[in-house]
Amino acid sequence: MDYRDKNIIITGGLGFIGSNLAIRTVGLGADVTIVDPSIEGCGASLENIQPVRDRIRLLPLDIGQAGEFAGAIAEADVIFNLAGEISHLHSMEFPERDLEINTTSQLRFLNVCKSENPKARIVFAGTRQIYGVPEYLPVDESHPINPVDFNGIHKYAATMYHLMLSRAGFLDAVVLRLTNVYGPRMALHVPSQGFLSTFLRKLTIGESLEIYGDGEQLRDPVFVEDVVDAFLLAGSEPRLRSRTYNVGGPEALSLAEIARICSSAAGAPAPSRRPFPEVLKAIDIGSYYTDTALIERELGWKPAIRLAEGIAMTLAYCRKQPVA
Amino acid sequence: MDYRDKNIIITGGLGFIGSNLAIRTVGLGADVTIVDPSIEGCGASLENIQPVRDRIRLLPLDIGQAGEFAGAIAEADVIFNLAGEISHLHSMEFPERDLEINTTSQLRFLNVCKSENPKARIVFAGTRQIYGVPEYLPVDESHPINPVDFNGIHKYAATMYHLMLSRAGFLDAVVLRLTNVYGPRMALHVPSQGFLSTFLRKLTIGESLEIYGDGEQLRDPVFVEDVVDAFLLAGSEPRLRSRTYNVGGPEALSLAEIARICSSAAGAPAPSRRPFPEVLKAIDIGSYYTDTALIERELGWKPAIRLAEGIAMTLAYCRKQPVA
Repeated sequence: MDYRDKNIIITGGLGFIGSNLAIRTVGLGADVTIVDPSIEGCGASLENIQPVRDRIRLLPLDIGQAGEFAGAIAEADVIFNLAGEISHLHSMEFPERDLEINTTSQLRFLNVCKSENPKARIVFAGTRQIYGVPEYLPVDESHPINPVDFNGIHKYAATMYHLMLSRAGFLDAVVLRLTNVYGPRMALHVPSQGFLSTFLRKLTIGESLEIYGDGEQLRDPVFVEDVVDAFLLAGSEPRLRSRTYNVGGPEALSLAEIARICSSAAGAPAPSRRPFPEVLKAIDIGSYYTDTALIERELGWKPAIRLAEGIAMTLAYCRKQPVA
Repeated sequence: MDYRDKNIIITGGLGFIGSNLAIRTVGLGADVTIVDPSIEGCGASLENIQPVRDRIRLLPLDIGQAGEFAGAIAEADVIFNLAGEISHLHSMEFPERDLEINTTSQLRFLNVCKSENPKARIVFAGTRQIYGVPEYLPVDESHPINPVDFNGIHKYAATMYHLMLSRAGFLDAVVLRLTNVYGPRMALHVPSQGFLSTFLRKLTIGESLEIYGDGEQLRDPVFVEDVVDAFLLAGSEPRLRSRTYNVGGPEALSLAEIARICSSAAGAPAPSRRPFPEVLKAIDIGSYYTDTALIERELGWKPAIRLAEGIAMTLAYCRKQPVA
């Protein structure tokens, strides 16, 4: 994993995962270019890259405007493609906006990558959402695709662009399908970024947590530094063209247990319970946790940080931030 | 299957399959509205609906303009949704156009259906293309999704819109995944409409056929009247919400055998052979034929017309048409 003097592009690099990746790759000696138009609702913040602000190049452009930074694309060794919006609920309210951000812009971007630099390794941030309601657990990469919202459909179209163009020899892309990611620089003050964002936001402003229903659904949250490791491996291993890997956490925990761990780490009271809201029922997927055997076998990646430890680090980071 | 006095909308109703469906449903006593903007390259032709022209309502609009015919949508009992483009090669050359036609317009259309008439049965014309290179034969509905071109990706996104919105209770859609369809009103004079269109065009203008490579790839062409039957069943059976059915032909035949049958029906010389063109190699999927057990079991549908018979009827129709 030698990133020294490598030309790296990070799309969505002002967002949660992208900014952590930017900080790490700068530390490894890479020349980092961030492409991020700071679209509202996507979690972008200049604050996120504050530690490396003067050592990266920031292009405040949408990836759909890739023609305007074709030169940077032509010189890239690795492109970490994290641009996009992740909100389930927002996508159901504004599906055309979600299509534009998550599909149309990706199509335009990849067409420029294809013509300017077909040999650059692209690592695309996919999502476990596309599996929908799990038909079995843990969920591996062969699980049927059944998105439960527009966001999942549009992310999956972008995933297929990467894979189809790579299989046909026009790109060299790898797709990571991420489960619930948490950690420093998470967008706590943007609506509908997932339950962990809600939990941490409440705890940082002194509210106690609520669990909907019985809270027995399982999840396997993964700490952002573990996810950054997966991106770095996927960005540097040869011969991965058109491979897909699930990326998940080290433990399958119930939402109630996750809420208890978060509350305890924050010194907050135990979570309370309330009925499941109707609006969320339609897109609830029950239990989900990840089969990470493939990425462990092929890339030697394993999540290292357990939830209690990761949440403590996240809360410590959040406490040092100005309250939005 | 009582279509008498039913309000039917057929999107793409000036095209090959849509026009056959229009003629049949008019014959069954339905009130038929065709929505078709006659986009170049999609095979639309007024000639196709000539036998019923004065008994249908024609709205020359794109389905993306659904707001302009929301009243018709509100009154529909069944919507046969066949709008779209099917060209593999064209989609690779003009992917944004393909996205607009096959995905964005469908999103706009379905959002109007959702708000105006969530109870109308929608039957969507999907495609076997989304399965990509078959991992096993015959291909059933659980086969993995691996589109080999932009057209397959965009058609699949539209498929997922139908299924996701139906599972969530916002629509009542059924998806038919069609293999190679042939028959009267096929678009013979539009480029890249598939090998059967090419075969029949050549034969109608007196050229002999060419087979690329060994011609051993299997296909199961299905006659358009069989496909119309499948649409009529899927449009009228209750409790099919969010179901998907493969629709294929009665015989798996090699391309060489198909060419021989077509040539023989036309009284043309036997097909010749030539090397496989590079541009087609990238998107060749090898052999494909359909497992139709599910639609047979659940809807009682079986393809009735064998290739030799169907091709004879198709050529008889073509000979009566003005040469374009």
